[in-house]
Amino acid sequence: MKRLDTTSATFSSDLKALLGERGGQASPVAEPVRAILADVRSRGDVALCEYTARFDRLDVPAEQLRISAEEIEREAALVPAELMEALHVAARRIEAFHRAQMPDDLDFTDAEGVRLGMRWTALDAVGLYVPGGKAAYPSSVLMNAIPARVAGVKRVAMCVPSPDGVLNPLVLAAARLCGVDEVYRIGGAQAVGAMAFGTDLVAPVDRIVGPGNAFVAEAKRQVFGHVGIDSIAGPSEVVVVADNKNDPRLTALDLLAQAEHDELAQSILITTDVAFGEEVAKAVEVELETLPRAAIAARSWADHGAVIIVRDFDEAAEIVNDLAPEHLEVMLDEPRAFSEKIRHAGAIFMGRNCPEAVGDYVGGPNHVLPTSRTARFASGLSVFDFLKRTTTIEADQSALKLIGPAGVALARAEGLDAHALSLSARLDKFRA
Amino acid sequence: MKRLDTTSATFSSDLKALLGERGGQASPVAEPVRAILADVRSRGDVALCEYTARFDRLDVPAEQLRISAEEIEREAALVPAELMEALHVAARRIEAFHRAQMPDDLDFTDAEGVRLGMRWTALDAVGLYVPGGKAAYPSSVLMNAIPARVAGVKRVAMCVPSPDGVLNPLVLAAARLCGVDEVYRIGGAQAVGAMAFGTDLVAPVDRIVGPGNAFVAEAKRQVFGHVGIDSIAGPSEVVVVADNKNDPRLTALDLLAQAEHDELAQSILITTDVAFGEEVAKAVEVELETLPRAAIAARSWADHGAVIIVRDFDEAAEIVNDLAPEHLEVMLDEPRAFSEKIRHAGAIFMGRNCPEAVGDYVGGPNHVLPTSRTARFASGLSVFDFLKRTTTIEADQSALKLIGPAGVALARAEGLDAHALSLSARLDKFRA
Repeated sequence: MKRLDTTSATFSSDLKALLGERGGQASPVAEPVRAILADVRSRGDVALCEYTARFDRLDVPAEQLRISAEEIEREAALVPAELMEALHVAARRIEAFHRAQMPDDLDFTDAEGVRLGMRWTALDAVGLYVPGGKAAYPSSVLMNAIPARVAGVKRVAMCVPSPDGVLNPLVLAAARLCGVDEVYRIGGAQAVGAMAFGTDLVAPVDRIVGPGNAFVAEAKRQVFGHVGIDSIAGPSEVVVVADNKNDPRLTALDLLAQAEHDELAQSILITTDVAFGEEVAKAVEVELETLPRAAIAARSWADHGAVIIVRDFDEAAEIVNDLAPEHLEVMLDEPRAFSEKIRHAGAIFMGRNCPEAVGDYVGGPNHVLPTSRTARFASGLSVFDFLKRTTTIEADQSALKLIGPAGVALARAEGLDAHALSLSARLDKFRA
Repeated sequence: MKRLDTTSATFSSDLKALLGERGGQASPVAEPVRAILADVRSRGDVALCEYTARFDRLDVPAEQLRISAEEIEREAALVPAELMEALHVAARRIEAFHRAQMPDDLDFTDAEGVRLGMRWTALDAVGLYVPGGKAAYPSSVLMNAIPARVAGVKRVAMCVPSPDGVLNPLVLAAARLCGVDEVYRIGGAQAVGAMAFGTDLVAPVDRIVGPGNAFVAEAKRQVFGHVGIDSIAGPSEVVVVADNKNDPRLTALDLLAQAEHDELAQSILITTDVAFGEEVAKAVEVELETLPRAAIAARSWADHGAVIIVRDFDEAAEIVNDLAPEHLEVMLDEPRAFSEKIRHAGAIFMGRNCPEAVGDYVGGPNHVLPTSRTARFASGLSVFDFLKRTTTIEADQSALKLIGPAGVALARAEGLDAHALSLSARLDKFRA
């Protein structure tokens, strides 16, 4: 953990160093991924079976790569009732928030008599990638599939690797709960290739979302343009802005909740009180003694964690805007007043009793959020990822008479005479 | 031009062939672009000056790479008054439509007492790339800069190459009209690198938009993630759905307005009437005799143009959804009824007197639209490209008591104990 202080002469270079340490290189797996994608594209299911046998030690005929409804049923039945109920609570709240997010169409006629519109329509088909093994999170299934459903996507397909054939009951229960239409036991770049280009078994989709390892991320990058993708997630981060009225242990737990994700995760406390900062740092060490994922969390905290001491909370707000964090906790008396000063953050958690973990599961807003300062220009997953806009223009003779001549002048100036003619020939005809 | 007929046994493979012929390969300039970007990132303005001298034959010190307000003023004064007025008409209409597009924030408290919100905020800084030479279109400046301004972006920078030092008065007049803050005579991958990473002269931006050649497109692809980018535009296309009550010459001109853009542009007429299709094809040939850009338009029409004969307009709608065209003209008696059947299109132009050229200049909606079937998942440029969302969650003790336990259960099931503890330690404290 690093200690930074805004009164220090080296503060701005210290802050820059803190941010510059994580990720951002070109992918070392670009070439193998390119080969896998080309292979899946040309040989289809045969390639899918070969890669699944090689990488997941699962050698089955192509049709068995699809997980049947009966298997899903059977696995989902293994989930304890209390956990099933928790999934339902989360799903209901996520659905309600994303319904509120649905945008309105536009349709109006302006002073020149031109009827203008903008229509939101859903994508036809979406592919959801779910990592296998340790990082298989049922909450991610909910966060990716529910917005697609709410947006009106007709077909949601899911790929989840099952190394050695082992299925994850919670992930399948979550998929069933959200009405995912098809589930395949396929992982890695081959899963992305199958969903992007289609095979006999897997029909192609229009957009691929969901987190994955380096192969999956690179594969998504390579198929981008052919299909849509969500943003490539980097390591996760939280900034906790807290005054000294907070419980140091709770503050420490919030920092550790981020740190336990990943050794590259980043947890930053910003406070005005040096003594409080030290108490939190001590509490972190105490909690690390018993935390199951202490090895990961300790590495993350040691390498990327920081306590930043600021003169006041206005200065804190400026630093938050520089950091553009994925998650921001505001543990102050007036969290809303503070949050008004924040221009860049993926999600803001307000109040002393609203830790970031609320947002991971049951808050309602999406937990797929822009990482690594990309909140400067990017947003969390939402119904907007599963919708697109069509604009409409309707003009009759009288409207074209009013706006057409300016179009003719501009088209001619740009040297696009057929453009000009397509307008002027109509205007001439009206006069004739 | 190809003739397709839905009653033909080979129709679906014919249609596939028609779509498969354009673009989509990996960029052959990936390596040189990588080198230029790395060079600009490490050597800054020195590299910018060297590349500008090499590629644009313009050897000036770094500070002169910025076009001064006086130069812009002087160049803009060269634009004839009638053309300036046309630019104003276009700018006013584009601004009005994009203002209507501005979305509302969300802020509500749900039944469990959780206050939820979603806030739209503008990007801080945007970079606009404008191609030099032939493809320098003032309308593109308006279409890219105005939505950024309407969204509330504080700083809009623009890069436009000036080969041999030659400036484009119309482009500079358009930039001045939209209040672009900084204009640089820099082009190519080096311009993208400067805006993405920043140099002493050019402060970095958060998102880069605007069309460019293969170097620019590949550079944008490579800086994606570090900054946001708009979609990489492919060759342009129009689908005209027309009955035989249309004037064949006007229909032909609309097809040619697309074809004159680029030899890879695609113009497709869909009609029920074979004879009308032939009349339009004849009218295309007649117009090509006098069209200034006939060489380009003829090549596009010959290689990628098509007339598709359908049984009825329901079938036409299905084909349009398959094509997911950038532009769709509906030249029918009831264009709105037809357009209700369209799920995928960048922009729809309704009525016999609303050619696509209206949308290029003075319609109001954006002319930067998804090409090459990407309207299946992508949308035209809009204020949404210059905004991002922050979600907010505010929960107090009583709200956390209601939703916290489900979060604890899910966090434990995912093996994320610090997540669970950050919730359960608070719940325990409430009980104490």
